[in-house]
Amino acid sequence: MAKSRAKSSKDRKSGIDELAASILAGNPRSAARVLSLIENRNPLANEVMKRLYSRTGRAHVIGITGSAGSGKSTLIDRIVAEFRRRKKRVGILTVDPSSPFSGGALLGDRVRMRNHFMDNGVFIRSLATRDGQGGLPTCVFEAAQLLDAMGNDSILIETIGIGQNQVEIARVADTVLVVMTPESGDEIQALKAGVLEIADLLVMNKSDLPGSAQMFVYLGDLLGAAGVPLFKTSALNDDGIAPLIDGIEKRWAELVRGGNRKRRILDISRTQLLALIRDRLMIKFEKKIGEQEITRWAQRVASKASDPYTAAETILAKLDL
Amino acid sequence: MAKSRAKSSKDRKSGIDELAASILAGNPRSAARVLSLIENRNPLANEVMKRLYSRTGRAHVIGITGSAGSGKSTLIDRIVAEFRRRKKRVGILTVDPSSPFSGGALLGDRVRMRNHFMDNGVFIRSLATRDGQGGLPTCVFEAAQLLDAMGNDSILIETIGIGQNQVEIARVADTVLVVMTPESGDEIQALKAGVLEIADLLVMNKSDLPGSAQMFVYLGDLLGAAGVPLFKTSALNDDGIAPLIDGIEKRWAELVRGGNRKRRILDISRTQLLALIRDRLMIKFEKKIGEQEITRWAQRVASKASDPYTAAETILAKLDL
Repeated sequence: MAKSRAKSSKDRKSGIDELAASILAGNPRSAARVLSLIENRNPLANEVMKRLYSRTGRAHVIGITGSAGSGKSTLIDRIVAEFRRRKKRVGILTVDPSSPFSGGALLGDRVRMRNHFMDNGVFIRSLATRDGQGGLPTCVFEAAQLLDAMGNDSILIETIGIGQNQVEIARVADTVLVVMTPESGDEIQALKAGVLEIADLLVMNKSDLPGSAQMFVYLGDLLGAAGVPLFKTSALNDDGIAPLIDGIEKRWAELVRGGNRKRRILDISRTQLLALIRDRLMIKFEKKIGEQEITRWAQRVASKASDPYTAAETILAKLDL
Repeated sequence: MAKSRAKSSKDRKSGIDELAASILAGNPRSAARVLSLIENRNPLANEVMKRLYSRTGRAHVIGITGSAGSGKSTLIDRIVAEFRRRKKRVGILTVDPSSPFSGGALLGDRVRMRNHFMDNGVFIRSLATRDGQGGLPTCVFEAAQLLDAMGNDSILIETIGIGQNQVEIARVADTVLVVMTPESGDEIQALKAGVLEIADLLVMNKSDLPGSAQMFVYLGDLLGAAGVPLFKTSALNDDGIAPLIDGIEKRWAELVRGGNRKRRILDISRTQLLALIRDRLMIKFEKKIGEQEITRWAQRVASKASDPYTAAETILAKLDL
């Protein structure tokens, strides 16, 4: 019995070693398998990631954000094609905001990126963010590092909508690319108010639309002082893509050459570390206090027998932390 | 010295009592002051909220969500006007996604809701969600409860963009109203994928636009099975607002009459309790471990001397939780 347990633990360890080795060799099936473990918060994922972590840090992680309707999907399709022309391996992650409920992909892997599906140099995956705890879930860090360890040169992370997700992408990406269009009205407000502070590059897509010239001048004025490079593309007409990729590559070279990437890596490490600790603290807490006790206190709060502040303080006082 | 300390603690306590009493009397200045304390995570806010909590639970909390460009601001303006015609007091909170960076309002209090600014029956505030930890920050719960204790009959909470924020509004609201337009293309996908599961009412705004009739039929087919009531409005032309408010009131009456509101209050209590515990656990943790130690570990992770999983496990093992 003890022997078989030892054997099974050894088997498990060698299974993890094999999975890690297979990902380092760029195997997409193994990568997909571990991404599912990451999504499902399976502890095995951590064991694999521990083995991959030292082999990360080579890829350029690019966050791409902009509201629905900015033509982001088509633009990403074109960006990938141009990266492939330049012989880069590309990983694409779509962070799916709706999935806490559906568990499925918003604009699933199946419909988008058709052009690249048969290309071995492109790995595509959408990531269901089941983690209702909020913010950019820790699984996004892990998924990006997995795609990095796989040997991708560029990793595109797409987030949808203006909101917390959009701003938080800056916590995991080396470079944030914000996509706007000549039609962006409300977004200009967002740009002024905060999105500008996370944008490393700004793209005005749909340059084929009327009003494009004025919007481009307007955005140029707005960005001039901030020193954010501005590009115009028409993803629909495959127009302006190469200069954009040149801009992305230039930004990456500067980031690596200057000291700024080191600073970013330290920030990312800190954020990821604190996020892991937060998740684990809550798991430990829930285990220690017990589901029943939490429910009992929630009922007291619901019936107004206690206020939530006093309830939280009372429960935490028991923990002796 | 001891005497003056005792006196100042007594003063502080009576200051808190006064502030709480003033909010219960509906004083907007006091409410604004405590909302600032809530935003800044000032511990005084908790002390005030402890005193208000037993006086909450009367207001109908309505989450309103939809992408930028859906005409939500104008629609909310019309909804408020109709509630006022019906002699309801209304509180409005705008949850501002961009503010972790700017600290300012996206489409600030100043420009919107001009029509209601001089009306004492309307309280307007935008809430900067500085809490980058993510999700719907605990301050949204607290702010909604404050507006409830103030005596508002309806509290409108507006979130911007499709994303985590949009889905999470369901955690604090009694009723979620999703706003779409005949132009909503990508949003239909979102609707199918998950937003539908949080919508209690769906509004197709901009019913004056071409394509409106088809979209309305299409949405009706989509929602029919789910039993979500569908409304059409043209906020621009002040069209369809009264039937929408009738629908909101009907929903509220059913929620209160049936047992579902109790269920919601229990869910909200649980979520708020766990969110408060999460925040406090992290504060306790950071105090106990110390800023220097966290930075030291972040540096080890950044330099790849450790992976983040091993680092988190090692730090937590020291805590003896």
